[in-house]
Amino acid sequence: MPLQYNEYYNEQTGLTIGLKKLLFSKQSEYQLVEVYETDTWGNLMTIDGMVMLSERDEFVYHEMISHVAMFTHPKPERVLIIGGGDGGTAREVLKHPSIQQVDMVEIDKTVVEASKLHFPGVGDFNNPKLNVLYEDGIAYVKNMKKPYDVIIIDGSDPVGPAEGLFEKDFYQFCLKALTPEGVLTAQTESPWVESYYPSMKKVFSALDDLFPISKMYLNYIPLYPAGMWSMACASRSEDPLGDGVLQRAESAQNILSALSYYNPDVHRGAFALPNFVKKIIQ
Amino acid sequence: MPLQYNEYYNEQTGLTIGLKKLLFSKQSEYQLVEVYETDTWGNLMTIDGMVMLSERDEFVYHEMISHVAMFTHPKPERVLIIGGGDGGTAREVLKHPSIQQVDMVEIDKTVVEASKLHFPGVGDFNNPKLNVLYEDGIAYVKNMKKPYDVIIIDGSDPVGPAEGLFEKDFYQFCLKALTPEGVLTAQTESPWVESYYPSMKKVFSALDDLFPISKMYLNYIPLYPAGMWSMACASRSEDPLGDGVLQRAESAQNILSALSYYNPDVHRGAFALPNFVKKIIQ
Repeated sequence: MPLQYNEYYNEQTGLTIGLKKLLFSKQSEYQLVEVYETDTWGNLMTIDGMVMLSERDEFVYHEMISHVAMFTHPKPERVLIIGGGDGGTAREVLKHPSIQQVDMVEIDKTVVEASKLHFPGVGDFNNPKLNVLYEDGIAYVKNMKKPYDVIIIDGSDPVGPAEGLFEKDFYQFCLKALTPEGVLTAQTESPWVESYYPSMKKVFSALDDLFPISKMYLNYIPLYPAGMWSMACASRSEDPLGDGVLQRAESAQNILSALSYYNPDVHRGAFALPNFVKKIIQ
Repeated sequence: MPLQYNEYYNEQTGLTIGLKKLLFSKQSEYQLVEVYETDTWGNLMTIDGMVMLSERDEFVYHEMISHVAMFTHPKPERVLIIGGGDGGTAREVLKHPSIQQVDMVEIDKTVVEASKLHFPGVGDFNNPKLNVLYEDGIAYVKNMKKPYDVIIIDGSDPVGPAEGLFEKDFYQFCLKALTPEGVLTAQTESPWVESYYPSMKKVFSALDDLFPISKMYLNYIPLYPAGMWSMACASRSEDPLGDGVLQRAESAQNILSALSYYNPDVHRGAFALPNFVKKIIQ
């Protein structure tokens, strides 16, 4: 085992993480899933050499991909998560008392297996409202039977099995799979990694074509390339910065008091985009 | 020369930057100043093994440490920069037409020398309104003769010569060196690096004691530890989120149109602190 994990996002530039032990390594039908014990980030999951989450920083990604959509929708009852095999997104969604059912469609059982073994604080897999399906998320959305209030696209980078999650066809299926007030969020890569600009442009131009409301928002994820991460929020009718959204969040003190990143100020502030970021998707 | 520059902020975890060439290396009276040509970040300056700036990402730090204070003050004419030897902060300050004089007090001439040679787009050293002094910033503020509208503490990390820039005594001198409407900003390290928490707490508790208004704000700097960077803004009378500040910024389209990071939305959004960040300085 190497002593350090390296992920380069621009030639020889990237992140280095000190390692203590390899805990899990399995080549699934789709990808190589590995878990390391690290020096200061707790356990770390990587897929095909890309950081997915660490125990120490996972709260940022999971809170921000979930609660922005969950508070934007006036009363989310049915939620679909595409990907999200580590369980962290479902854990956050399940904190909302209006929830009746969360369907998590993860293509690769190995991710869930690794999470159950090595990220005990991340998944809430025994929650009776959580329904885990091991299927292709794109096919699932295409054939969806009953629409969802919130759809969260929690896939990995636009290479390998997650590539289709950045295509317009897929977002067209998502639109049909949402209730009229439905809200969609997706992870959309780092604004500092130029090789992902084409995927980012593709996603935001598709969302812009399909949804009357579509916005990018940002959050700081230390173990993702360059530490700045973008996400998308789209809806036919619900504006994530609309009247009532932040008040709704503000009044949910039972949820907010246990969070480490998200709060109503952060929700609003995350949609403030630096000029160079706006240019990427213009 | 190594092929990669490594800066570890938590044991063996940190940043790795691909290098092409060593361009400058000088042990000054105070510190080791080096400049490398990198793979994808242009030229990179390091001091005692800590990243100071790269040509590609310097705009974030320099715009955010300058324009927040410059728009918070109703009409900044006299500005003091402590440190800031690369010249980038002065360059941003000088974009404001109300400016009459900028005094930059840099302890180490070597930093200015390296910048003039290898960061031609960063400094605006020939600007007649800029007055560069090679002195100890703390002593300078202590003996200040005519007060300033804005003071910007643009020092390096709280080890070595910049240590005193994190002490309460120093901020007491700053308070005296400010006009009644004066505004101070300072760089205050990464909220993900626990070893800097004592310094961060010390600064914010000092500012809180001394200034009626003092707030933390954040920005994303890819080549600084963990990519999330904090800054402080403090004043006797001017609230960086007060009425008029954002309108003042909004109306300065001649300045805004040439910026890559700062805009009035980003100004406001930067003050939205994630819960875990608030806890550090509570």
